Amino acid sequence: MNEIGKFLSNHKGKKVVAVQGLGFVGSVMSLVCANALHEDYAVLGVDRNNEKGNKIINMLNKGVLPIKAEDPSIEKLLLNAAKNKNFLATNDESAFSFADIIIVDINLDVKKQNNPDGSLVDFDVDLQSFKSAMITIGSFCKYNATILIETTVPPGTCKNIVQPIIYEKLEQRGLSIDSIKIGHSYERVMPGPDYVDSIRNFYRVYSGIDEKSENAVEKFLKTIIKVDNYPLTKLSNTNATEMAKVLENSYRAMNIAFMVEWSRFAEKAEVDIYSMIDAIRLRPTHSNMMYPGIGVGGYCLTKDSLLASWSNRVIFKNETQLNQSEKAIRINDQMPYYAYKYLSSQTNLKGKKITILGVSYRGDVGDTRSSPVEALVFHLEKNGCQMIYHDPYVQFWEEKGIKINSDISFVLSKPTDILIISAAHSIYKNEDIIETIEGMTDLLIYDTIGLLTNKQIEKLNNKHEVKVLGRGDL
Amino acid sequence: MNEIGKFLSNHKGKKVVAVQGLGFVGSVMSLVCANALHEDYAVLGVDRNNEKGNKIINMLNKGVLPIKAEDPSIEKLLLNAAKNKNFLATNDESAFSFADIIIVDINLDVKKQNNPDGSLVDFDVDLQSFKSAMITIGSFCKYNATILIETTVPPGTCKNIVQPIIYEKLEQRGLSIDSIKIGHSYERVMPGPDYVDSIRNFYRVYSGIDEKSENAVEKFLKTIIKVDNYPLTKLSNTNATEMAKVLENSYRAMNIAFMVEWSRFAEKAEVDIYSMIDAIRLRPTHSNMMYPGIGVGGYCLTKDSLLASWSNRVIFKNETQLNQSEKAIRINDQMPYYAYKYLSSQTNLKGKKITILGVSYRGDVGDTRSSPVEALVFHLEKNGCQMIYHDPYVQFWEEKGIKINSDISFVLSKPTDILIISAAHSIYKNEDIIETIEGMTDLLIYDTIGLLTNKQIEKLNNKHEVKVLGRGDL
Repeated sequence: MNEIGKFLSNHKGKKVVAVQGLGFVGSVMSLVCANALHEDYAVLGVDRNNEKGNKIINMLNKGVLPIKAEDPSIEKLLLNAAKNKNFLATNDESAFSFADIIIVDINLDVKKQNNPDGSLVDFDVDLQSFKSAMITIGSFCKYNATILIETTVPPGTCKNIVQPIIYEKLEQRGLSIDSIKIGHSYERVMPGPDYVDSIRNFYRVYSGIDEKSENAVEKFLKTIIKVDNYPLTKLSNTNATEMAKVLENSYRAMNIAFMVEWSRFAEKAEVDIYSMIDAIRLRPTHSNMMYPGIGVGGYCLTKDSLLASWSNRVIFKNETQLNQSEKAIRINDQMPYYAYKYLSSQTNLKGKKITILGVSYRGDVGDTRSSPVEALVFHLEKNGCQMIYHDPYVQFWEEKGIKINSDISFVLSKPTDILIISAAHSIYKNEDIIETIEGMTDLLIYDTIGLLTNKQIEKLNNKHEVKVLGRGDL
Repeated sequence: MNEIGKFLSNHKGKKVVAVQGLGFVGSVMSLVCANALHEDYAVLGVDRNNEKGNKIINMLNKGVLPIKAEDPSIEKLLLNAAKNKNFLATNDESAFSFADIIIVDINLDVKKQNNPDGSLVDFDVDLQSFKSAMITIGSFCKYNATILIETTVPPGTCKNIVQPIIYEKLEQRGLSIDSIKIGHSYERVMPGPDYVDSIRNFYRVYSGIDEKSENAVEKFLKTIIKVDNYPLTKLSNTNATEMAKVLENSYRAMNIAFMVEWSRFAEKAEVDIYSMIDAIRLRPTHSNMMYPGIGVGGYCLTKDSLLASWSNRVIFKNETQLNQSEKAIRINDQMPYYAYKYLSSQTNLKGKKITILGVSYRGDVGDTRSSPVEALVFHLEKNGCQMIYHDPYVQFWEEKGIKINSDISFVLSKPTDILIISAAHSIYKNEDIIETIEGMTDLLIYDTIGLLTNKQIEKLNNKHEVKVLGRGDL
């Protein structure tokens, strides 16, 4: 009996959930299913049989989450799953053959080609590995399984890609297509302090390719989400939920891009853009106004508008393009270069020692995917700057292949010329840290994200020179 | 003794407020001051000595608000002011010579030049009449008055235009400039059901050209606004509050423009954009997402981004343009033409009888300034269509010079081919009205703003053909 057989023999009579892809979403989704509110599932987490996949699988099976984030509830889910032994991570694709519910949490990538200044030259949507994953599922799944796509996909994917592949594979296997259920419901996972709540305690929209699919998805979601507080919303077809997801993220990306031009205006007019935004946000109709900053990172906001734009053009052959949404990506991609240009307009960077506080793209999480800090560092290094890094959540910066120090006292004890605040980790707001920085030898402090309060700036300005991106002269 | 002298003789010892401009903002602002929460003001409302100005003045002095809107609290303010006799409307500019506080609520216009399809050819900011108004104030005001600019102005106006003019005029009059106070605080007046509350019960930001100006403005605002519930926010200079106002409105305009392209995508993909937006809005970070629709109207959202862009370019000579914010205006200006194009793709319009429900730009208010309905009607009339109009809040459509019927039963009793829902007045959501429409002879119903519920559409679809802009086929 193999690993999966042994695992399942301890969970007879239970429904089996298989999660495809154990990244930022799938790993936590697996744990949420293993700790479902209203059902006792046996959960199989499936990732690829390669170095990265196996590393994640081993970590999860040892009760360690592969992503570091500031959410204590993840520990509880991990401990509980370990106690109940109802979660197994594996690279064995036959796992799908046992599943009543298959949740797809793999990535669907956009290949972007950017110039060194960040300007987008071209992009293409790479459907190949997503299609392969559907073929795998179609080759193994039960004839009556429920397949729930959570991956962010170009609108039209469930109808035009998933359904045809699954039907074809079932037919090839001599199975009926009448009982298979295919649905779409996107997570709104936000790695960070509310990691688990962003799945369990949050509004969901869902859809299915037919009524039985809709019902199956609804039934499943009700077992893992607190629907009393966060009622589900059914949309009328899979195009709609797929579109809703990329629209959500395009909305954020566009609202950031919009602020970028205003931050340049604010700089010129000597307006503190952060106080101005705070004042405006009090108005409920304007509460979603974004801060500008060093740039937009992460896996979603840097590409989802392009998925949408591609779908609009290629799948739906629409004449009206999503120009504005694409333009937002183009503007945001150049933000780190502007942050660099602004700094270089304030001081001669040649050969300077520079301390970077925070390399991840978001506060209180160790996620460096498409982090704008990488692009900023690229330009600083071209000036022969010597970099010193700190991040409490990133031990190893994969994209750059370097180790990151997490000891703030140690990092701040090193001699440096420029201190750049580049991620909104809570620790940097700490008054003790501000005092340590105050006590350092004269330096240029560059707050790229408006993290420092006016009081802190005043204090630091006594000894150092403080620059805040988007605020002009202080 | 003239009219003002007589009025003031009844209010000896009281502080005098003079409001310059009695339009949508100034008329209600005057009443709010006459009904101040923590001070007993004598209020002089000043408008121009021309036909329009004198009409407004006469109406207000008779206790009639020149704007029709669905807010019962205006009546109370009017009645109370009439009872206390502490409000006088006048065209006599010497009113400013008695004022302790002068509030500027005049318009500052953008001259736009659009093609028939709405595309913006060119625009310019017309400062002339604003400058004249400042000269008037400077020629009459007390040496120690507080001048509060509420007009939406290009950022930089208080410092670069108001202050120099006022100082120059005081000096010409041989008066000291040391005691004059100049500040900026913008209202967020929203004509409609919350007209009064949008002034009295709302967050305010303010600023002054110096500390005494800041203090004077703060002191005054505290007498008219419920600051316990809606605390005031001071920004560090007048550029900042001026910029905040145009940024607020640019944010709205841009968020509408953003949705326009998505609504075309939704149409193609047969997605109901309104349900999709409703589902997304549940997420607090996305609660400001806008509906698309027939177009953007009103005095502010159609021009404020241009004021900002002009200031950025002309006053601050910035290299980075506010391209995105300008682009939003350009997109929105073309929305009515698209609404027309969509309708003409569904039916032959030549010579059709068309009933328009709602000519104002916003629900439950009689404001037709820059109403997108005007542009839609322009194209329909070019097709020889015979128009029938209804609006409960507009007796006379000034921009078109025609009378509007407010009797919905009468309007719906007339034979028609196409019924267009073009303003979100509450009455059109009424089930009785839906039943009346259901009972009409076969017609094409065109909901340009997503007002109808799915249930109502289903009901109407039994007999009529219902099209909803941005929803594709139903």
